[in-house]
Amino acid sequence: MAREESARRIERDIETLAGPDYTLSKEAIRRYAYTPVYRNTLAYFTKELEELGFEVEQDPVGTLVARNRPKGEAVFGIGSHCDSNRNGGRYDGTMGVVTALEVCRLNSELGYGLPLQLISWLEEEGSGFGQMLLGSRIMAQRVTEEDLRERFRAIDDGRSFWEHAEEAGYQPERWRECAHVIDDLTGWIEMHIEQARVLQDTGNRIGLVTAIAGYVHADVRVHGRGDHAGATPMDFRLDPTLSLAETIVELERLAREAGKGTVGTVGEIEVDPGIINAIASRVRFSLDIRGPDDEAYGGVAREIAAFAEEAAGRRGMRAEYAERQTLPATPMDGRILDALEAAARATGEPYMRMHSGAAHDTMCVADRIPCAMVFVPCKDGISHHPAEDASPADAALAAEIILEAIRALS
Amino acid sequence: MAREESARRIERDIETLAGPDYTLSKEAIRRYAYTPVYRNTLAYFTKELEELGFEVEQDPVGTLVARNRPKGEAVFGIGSHCDSNRNGGRYDGTMGVVTALEVCRLNSELGYGLPLQLISWLEEEGSGFGQMLLGSRIMAQRVTEEDLRERFRAIDDGRSFWEHAEEAGYQPERWRECAHVIDDLTGWIEMHIEQARVLQDTGNRIGLVTAIAGYVHADVRVHGRGDHAGATPMDFRLDPTLSLAETIVELERLAREAGKGTVGTVGEIEVDPGIINAIASRVRFSLDIRGPDDEAYGGVAREIAAFAEEAAGRRGMRAEYAERQTLPATPMDGRILDALEAAARATGEPYMRMHSGAAHDTMCVADRIPCAMVFVPCKDGISHHPAEDASPADAALAAEIILEAIRALS
Repeated sequence: MAREESARRIERDIETLAGPDYTLSKEAIRRYAYTPVYRNTLAYFTKELEELGFEVEQDPVGTLVARNRPKGEAVFGIGSHCDSNRNGGRYDGTMGVVTALEVCRLNSELGYGLPLQLISWLEEEGSGFGQMLLGSRIMAQRVTEEDLRERFRAIDDGRSFWEHAEEAGYQPERWRECAHVIDDLTGWIEMHIEQARVLQDTGNRIGLVTAIAGYVHADVRVHGRGDHAGATPMDFRLDPTLSLAETIVELERLAREAGKGTVGTVGEIEVDPGIINAIASRVRFSLDIRGPDDEAYGGVAREIAAFAEEAAGRRGMRAEYAERQTLPATPMDGRILDALEAAARATGEPYMRMHSGAAHDTMCVADRIPCAMVFVPCKDGISHHPAEDASPADAALAAEIILEAIRALS
Repeated sequence: MAREESARRIERDIETLAGPDYTLSKEAIRRYAYTPVYRNTLAYFTKELEELGFEVEQDPVGTLVARNRPKGEAVFGIGSHCDSNRNGGRYDGTMGVVTALEVCRLNSELGYGLPLQLISWLEEEGSGFGQMLLGSRIMAQRVTEEDLRERFRAIDDGRSFWEHAEEAGYQPERWRECAHVIDDLTGWIEMHIEQARVLQDTGNRIGLVTAIAGYVHADVRVHGRGDHAGATPMDFRLDPTLSLAETIVELERLAREAGKGTVGTVGEIEVDPGIINAIASRVRFSLDIRGPDDEAYGGVAREIAAFAEEAAGRRGMRAEYAERQTLPATPMDGRILDALEAAARATGEPYMRMHSGAAHDTMCVADRIPCAMVFVPCKDGISHHPAEDASPADAALAAEIILEAIRALS
């Protein structure tokens, strides 16, 4: 009954925030830092939270922070982000903040009076400045002043983050103080849509995240020899597409063999010159290798790098492997996870433990605070797209589980 | 001694035709129909041939035809094309016409007095109107009037072939009469650079072409499912790059197994959306499958089409195979080949029988006339590029062999 009322409220929040005052696009949700529609969204949450007796403020760059206890008192953190990618849907991020708001509402209605702090992180999607997890990275001091003053520039007009933040009335020169946003947290739980189809396809309504995957992003370049596709016999070829093919097949084998949630993907392929009647002279392809277990996916990255070089070498060609970026996995806190699992079990609804393959703001919070995440299904795994769909009833279930877990931990 | 003198003259011709009056570009040979530099090139051959007593004319669209006997008398045909691709070298085509000119010179000097007809085909490379083998296809009536009037348009200004031909003083309305260009031929031999590295890598100076490869050009589209590369476990994926990879590997296996000069190439690969952290939703790739034996390469095309569909199906995806274009192989004439082989053997120089993987004007002549081709090596197989390189000494050897073969056949 309470859960149905929760679902109704969550649905209303989501509907409201999909209205014309809250998105720059009619076809999609498009909402990012310092735009009027983003301001309206923060104002919506501010009003709702103030009605519940929360004190609401924004940190020096615009991350929303609301608490029902004075600063300095221990609180439990909940929240997500309410910006979207440029061609986004209603649920990614926003449903997490809305669910955190619902946790605050239930906390009042049920008279629990738990000490809570809600955070809506700035610029998780990078739609404003091309920098993912920007607000939580500023909080975690994973950026430099040079980044904020010069390097991070608006996609729309090329002006710096610093300039935009000042113009919007914030104080970017105080960015180091953003670290204090989580000073009082005893724990942190973020709810988010899954962005894949594991929950849907296994019939679970709740995912309890055990770890957020780390990853290796890399490129392989294979140098072959561009010859005439008709005039060059099979034995006279140095065709780099064959090394590409062998590496794709081997990557799948290695990822499966490594297990422990390891995945490997070739998402970009560039063939030079890329014409039907020419053997390629060069191929570049990307590798995205992830998993919650650093040993497991890191091993796959090392093995596929060696394999690509050997596979090219066997055919008389040369391959180069170059990493773009790596980030270690972030394990979630066992005690919070157990509390969430007990609360989930108590509902009688189907749930599972799983890891998150995607990155989330929680990775930055986890530097200092025990963290966990709760996933709800999204239809067919579609995300970052107007067709994104998720169920308010699942979010209401998540709100109940999160509230009961925090209660048990308090 | 005669051969050295031939090489000297061939080198001079090639050097001359690489000069500023004969190319639109300083960095490359760029020469195509109806440009002043193309006109100059025809004028050069005309003058040289008239000095040898040939009667020179151009057919209604601009193919150069020179003969040392009156029309109606049987002659043996030799020649190639003297247009280039837009970023071309000095040898592709032009060296064939120059070598044919040298055959005419030797025929006079040695007092053989053989009845000869030299042809330089218009627009083999398609640089003017995007249509390969255009002059010889017009002769073979493998085009329609609609093509010439409307469909074939200049790359430079979009105006029709018809308009350009008229403006240049030709009579495109008489295009059907171009068929008569080869009426008097008892045989035809085209000399061309190999455009691959078989002669170089096997240490042969002469290639005697047994057949010009036929081909299948096709596309395969694999429809997968675009999911998050991090969030989607290996068992939940429909990743079309795996079908791509399996098909590339199988194409190589099938082409090798088929033998008989069959080759198979994947030259174009398009991944949608093509970003590092997304499993592709769709992949398109091209197939170029060729060989001198229609049964052999045709079988590979059928088998790889079935394989691609099955490979995608095994993974729960769908693949579509669609042919763009097919052309059967063109066998060369055994009697002319034998005469060329006897002449080659007599020189004591290394030669081999081979097929042509690339297309040539001779494919169109072969509809009605017994044909053969002679290849000379080109450095590292490089062609269609300013770095193209070939030896005037090899061309002189080819001229001698062609002349002696025609003499033996007469």
